Amino acid sequence: MKKVCVIITARPSYSRIKSTLLALKKNKNIQLQIILSGSALLDRYGKVSKVIREDGFIIDSQIHNVIEGSELSHSVKSVGLALIDLSSELSKINPDIVITIADRYETIANAIASSYMNIPLLHIQGGEYTGSIDNKVRHAITKLADIHFVATDLAKKRVISMGEDPENVFKTGCPSIDIALEVEQTPVLNFDPFERYKGTGPKFNCKNGYLVVMQHPVTTEYDEAFNQANETINAIRKIDLPVFWFWPNVDAGSDATSKALRIFREFNKNAKFHFFKNLLPKDFLLLVQNSSCLVGNSSVGIRECSFLGIPVVNIGSRQNGRERAKNVIDVCHDSNSIFNAIKKQINHGKFEKSYLYGNGKAGEIMADLISKIEFKSINNNFY
Amino acid sequence: MKKVCVIITARPSYSRIKSTLLALKKNKNIQLQIILSGSALLDRYGKVSKVIREDGFIIDSQIHNVIEGSELSHSVKSVGLALIDLSSELSKINPDIVITIADRYETIANAIASSYMNIPLLHIQGGEYTGSIDNKVRHAITKLADIHFVATDLAKKRVISMGEDPENVFKTGCPSIDIALEVEQTPVLNFDPFERYKGTGPKFNCKNGYLVVMQHPVTTEYDEAFNQANETINAIRKIDLPVFWFWPNVDAGSDATSKALRIFREFNKNAKFHFFKNLLPKDFLLLVQNSSCLVGNSSVGIRECSFLGIPVVNIGSRQNGRERAKNVIDVCHDSNSIFNAIKKQINHGKFEKSYLYGNGKAGEIMADLISKIEFKSINNNFY
Amino acid sequence: MKKVCVIITARPSYSRIKSTLLALKKNKNIQLQIILSGSALLDRYGKVSKVIREDGFIIDSQIHNVIEGSELSHSVKSVGLALIDLSSELSKINPDIVITIADRYETIANAIASSYMNIPLLHIQGGEYTGSIDNKVRHAITKLADIHFVATDLAKKRVISMGEDPENVFKTGCPSIDIALEVEQTPVLNFDPFERYKGTGPKFNCKNGYLVVMQHPVTTEYDEAFNQANETINAIRKIDLPVFWFWPNVDAGSDATSKALRIFREFNKNAKFHFFKNLLPKDFLLLVQNSSCLVGNSSVGIRECSFLGIPVVNIGSRQNGRERAKNVIDVCHDSNSIFNAIKKQINHGKFEKSYLYGNGKAGEIMADLISKIEFKSINNNFY
Amino acid sequence: MKKVCVIITARPSYSRIKSTLLALKKNKNIQLQIILSGSALLDRYGKVSKVIREDGFIIDSQIHNVIEGSELSHSVKSVGLALIDLSSELSKINPDIVITIADRYETIANAIASSYMNIPLLHIQGGEYTGSIDNKVRHAITKLADIHFVATDLAKKRVISMGEDPENVFKTGCPSIDIALEVEQTPVLNFDPFERYKGTGPKFNCKNGYLVVMQHPVTTEYDEAFNQANETINAIRKIDLPVFWFWPNVDAGSDATSKALRIFREFNKNAKFHFFKNLLPKDFLLLVQNSSCLVGNSSVGIRECSFLGIPVVNIGSRQNGRERAKNVIDVCHDSNSIFNAIKKQINHGKFEKSYLYGNGKAGEIMADLISKIEFKSINNNFY
Repeated sequence: MKKVCVIITARPSYSRIKSTLLALKKNKNIQLQIILSGSALLDRYGKVSKVIREDGFIIDSQIHNVIEGSELSHSVKSVGLALIDLSSELSKINPDIVITIADRYETIANAIASSYMNIPLLHIQGGEYTGSIDNKVRHAITKLADIHFVATDLAKKRVISMGEDPENVFKTGCPSIDIALEVEQTPVLNFDPFERYKGTGPKFNCKNGYLVVMQHPVTTEYDEAFNQANETINAIRKIDLPVFWFWPNVDAGSDATSKALRIFREFNKNAKFHFFKNLLPKDFLLLVQNSSCLVGNSSVGIRECSFLGIPVVNIGSRQNGRERAKNVIDVCHDSNSIFNAIKKQINHGKFEKSYLYGNGKAGEIMADLISKIEFKSINNNFY
Repeated sequence: MKKVCVIITARPSYSRIKSTLLALKKNKNIQLQIILSGSALLDRYGKVSKVIREDGFIIDSQIHNVIEGSELSHSVKSVGLALIDLSSELSKINPDIVITIADRYETIANAIASSYMNIPLLHIQGGEYTGSIDNKVRHAITKLADIHFVATDLAKKRVISMGEDPENVFKTGCPSIDIALEVEQTPVLNFDPFERYKGTGPKFNCKNGYLVVMQHPVTTEYDEAFNQANETINAIRKIDLPVFWFWPNVDAGSDATSKALRIFREFNKNAKFHFFKNLLPKDFLLLVQNSSCLVGNSSVGIRECSFLGIPVVNIGSRQNGRERAKNVIDVCHDSNSIFNAIKKQINHGKFEKSYLYGNGKAGEIMADLISKIEFKSINNNFY
Repeated sequence: MKKVCVIITARPSYSRIKSTLLALKKNKNIQLQIILSGSALLDRYGKVSKVIREDGFIIDSQIHNVIEGSELSHSVKSVGLALIDLSSELSKINPDIVITIADRYETIANAIASSYMNIPLLHIQGGEYTGSIDNKVRHAITKLADIHFVATDLAKKRVISMGEDPENVFKTGCPSIDIALEVEQTPVLNFDPFERYKGTGPKFNCKNGYLVVMQHPVTTEYDEAFNQANETINAIRKIDLPVFWFWPNVDAGSDATSKALRIFREFNKNAKFHFFKNLLPKDFLLLVQNSSCLVGNSSVGIRECSFLGIPVVNIGSRQNGRERAKNVIDVCHDSNSIFNAIKKQINHGKFEKSYLYGNGKAGEIMADLISKIEFKSINNNFY
Repeated sequence: MKKVCVIITARPSYSRIKSTLLALKKNKNIQLQIILSGSALLDRYGKVSKVIREDGFIIDSQIHNVIEGSELSHSVKSVGLALIDLSSELSKINPDIVITIADRYETIANAIASSYMNIPLLHIQGGEYTGSIDNKVRHAITKLADIHFVATDLAKKRVISMGEDPENVFKTGCPSIDIALEVEQTPVLNFDPFERYKGTGPKFNCKNGYLVVMQHPVTTEYDEAFNQANETINAIRKIDLPVFWFWPNVDAGSDATSKALRIFREFNKNAKFHFFKNLLPKDFLLLVQNSSCLVGNSSVGIRECSFLGIPVVNIGSRQNGRERAKNVIDVCHDSNSIFNAIKKQINHGKFEKSYLYGNGKAGEIMADLISKIEFKSINNNFY
């Protein structure tokens, strides 16, 4: 039995790995170990732990490491705490391989803990390129990892050019596309979002189109984050469509974004803005699939929506550098530009399907590779 | 005034930066901030803090983060603790740039703390190549850093090939060679090591040649580390020369090495083995300069000794992959091979000087660049 | 110069020490050192750091140690983090005495750090008695402390009966009464709370009476905390007076209380409930001084209000065991009982002044003692 | 099944609880959970983990929390780390009761973690009195604990006088006496200490009497600790008996004591001083039982030796305040006084047995109480 430990640090990471987890669980040679940490455990971001359990998985360990407050130094402290807990936890469950996903700041703790403890590290979603600190985190993790599952050809090329052994780099596509494939096969919005997810704000009719907005702060400047949120709010207000708006992730600056939203609500109680913390991954994609346009800076717009052909208005620098299909219009944090881009996308309607980020079978491909590759820490001497 | 913060985590790192610190201190536009952490603060490795103060520097902050014990998980915990302390300390002293040196496991904390807090990070000694986990650490730090000062042409090429902007990569040579240059200019052993450094073991006459031995554990397996130490001990015993032996660094496994040495002493009280914790960097080089051969796996053999032309027997994998000049014979952890190589080196005597790792002016070159480059964190958006 | 270090971990503690700080600052033999930690640094509880700076104090150090989430284990982790930071910080600022206030869970870190580091510890507000874990924390701190400044005769007796040397126990009264004395001397509500503190909810006329409500969770059961908040909400709604309601402290369970309040607001947007995070200590007391009744479980009702003679309805067990004057009616978490008690108190109006918790001169008395007592750690051997 | 979690933080604590653990293990209504932390896991103090496993116990969790170095602030940091790990570990194993033993500095972490997490806390060995910081730690733990098992009548009186409910205080005797009873029943030194425990230093004949020395540092002053060790060394040298000397515990200052011993060895290689790290508890007692006198400041001299009637010379303040039987002569850190007292004790020979610390049945009494008492956290509201 190979003990495969997957560390999930945030809600979006679960969507990026769910189909792989399902495929791993079916494999009789694999013992799945799941560690949750970071915002994945926090109520205000919609505890993904509950979702994971309801999907039939057992959570082996929970690491509470988020320091309250939004200074950059808190991210450093949270990584420090994660390392302290991981050092104990990995000693205890003693996995044969650790899997870490993507590039959130706290995931570097997963990479350090396993590489320093001589546990082979598999990194999913390396080799991509974005315009922010995520780049540094992602590439540093690449250099700590032993095996790489990447989503695109370009990503594969980048990982190899950074000096990784081509034999350890596999293009698998992104498991998030696996959920998109499911949604494409049964695309009807088969639930009432107000009913199932409550949220706050007025109800409205979804039949005549609506927008989905998800905007995360990309700056550490409180004032700037506040203004950026307001530019988007102001653009959206002028569009004559109701809106599902998702609260941002736990991040430095997210309080500024949330504050802008709360102030807006205080003075616009009747606006057709309905606010959610989060939806089940598939439900979220169904909501997006049936929307007129996705607005904001979520990577869902770049990835899943490329496969589904959903029109996307991508705001600001957060997704800079990410490969994209034709479904995306990029705009800066300017109310008018945002407004015009949304109008244009609504008029255009659905785009053609793209296979840029995979064909919907990534989970199975990954689980198959994991069960077959003989993992060994490439450098098994420490000092 | 540019606030330049240098984080020193271990005794050898100080030799790698001392001439730079001296040059920075002279520069009126620079306010030097020194943070000590890790084994640099530990008595059993020869508190380098005392040396640094005696060299005229002020230590701004001390971070005690070494977890006692030699399991690999302890390294992870020590990094975690360093991050917690650095998050507070860097918030307080608020530097314009952080400098981290080389590739010891704990230095990744310096890189994470400064890059996550948007403080430009300068990495010294990137782009080198060794056969162990250090590789992962070094290259991960490269990907977190904004500016790179490298020692050799090949190192520069490697850093750039990993995707770093060539404009941010500078070949400066290694400051350790600056001390070697001083030693070369006044090469006489002008002090009595027994007198000045005490240590343990019998005194002997240095005039007729002696060996210097410094061997760090390169494995996490206690038994293996113990055996490797014994192979070297057994080879050295057969050489008819007195020995200055240096205790190993604080590392997983170092207890096994120390234990082998203690057991040897217990039963060989009259052997001409004298044991030191550490010497002042320049005194150490003077001792090496006047020795018949340097034995073990210290990087001093590869770097400083290439400039000084001292014969070196390099044991095992610790320096694998490092560029070397002609002064080095590589052998595995085998008593006979070690013995033969030492014999051969003693017979050969001094080698020709090599400029592979610099010309002895690295400190000035670095300080000059630091005062001139306009540092900005290349990615100044966090999320 | 005596270096006197005061550690403030939460908003209410500042009111309990402010007049002492002012008196210490005036004393030329004393160098004041202020460390802030815990919720005192958090925006959502009204950063008290800003208030402290505006009062003319310099903050020497900020310790960010609150783990996000509301499980009990998070309190333990937050104490752990505080200890790690205090060990570094106290080493650095090296005070002659540390002052810790009252009995919040995180203050035990202050007591451990200073007693273990042989820094004499002065505990303010020991010897009181309440019905919860605070008791354990308070009394444990008493046993770690060297000097005790207590508020009442009974508290003094209790501290001595626990084995403390009577020579080290001083009845000083509580500095919170010093602010009450100021308010009594100029009792007019000389500011517009809506204007100065914004908050959320409708404005109303304060001239015809209003309630002030401050209810902190006293339970770790989420559902129970939620219900307790609702009992109070339901009682208050039936009273025909507008309400100033204060958000609870950062505590396990506080999310449940906040949630009850947010749900109430969602469905009662026009109710005359105005919500504040916090007011300046004196402004808060002025607001209470001019209210018809203080409702909830704040210790202000027991302490400051006894001196001011304000009618108080004290709900639940949080203040159990605290000595009280005649101005308090105690009720359990039952909507009807709360309603009836408020009615009774409004009808009664102001009570006679009590000196139970001091005469308004505690700050000066304390500063005077601190400058005179020769502090020495009573047990200055550690092991 | 009652889940009973015992936290052992150091070698001597295991002797204080072993017979209780054996009795608990036999009880079918109890599920024993053992957590090891602190110096109990460190090689240089003789890993007690190995001993515990060989005694047939399963270790549920290991907490590595000792910061290397001997500054007082390190104790604070180690407690902080223990809290962080305990918060995760106790959440996971979820015991019905936590047992903590005695008064070592790090045990306060056990008390805080369990009391803050509403897990009933049983404290063993409260109510004693010593002249150092241990007093503060012990009494603070008493105030955090829910149930108290004390060794003597006087201890019981003290715990109650500190305000604990007499119904929760039980005089059980000390389990260390249980091992003494075993030794008394079969008192022959039935093993060769040199053979079984190796250690360092020359072998000698045990038949004609020997001394056992165990001296822990009691001061934080490096120089003072060094001198105190030397006073004892000098006295012992003059006694014409061979010596078994035990290295001190991991403590601030222990490096100074160890250093004094190492220097002595360096220059007195043939002195009949044999050094051990530690022995199995029973073997240690057998060694003491057959010795001429126990010298130093170990509590074994006060406790176990009172039952066995072994002559003891107790040096310095470490055991000040502890109730003692007639077998102890107290002296200060003065070479002559120590010498004279040892002479006197050797001449006196064995003393009469005392039941001061129990009758040898404490383990069974405790296990019986634990299985019967209905433990509930006395204060089960946290805030």
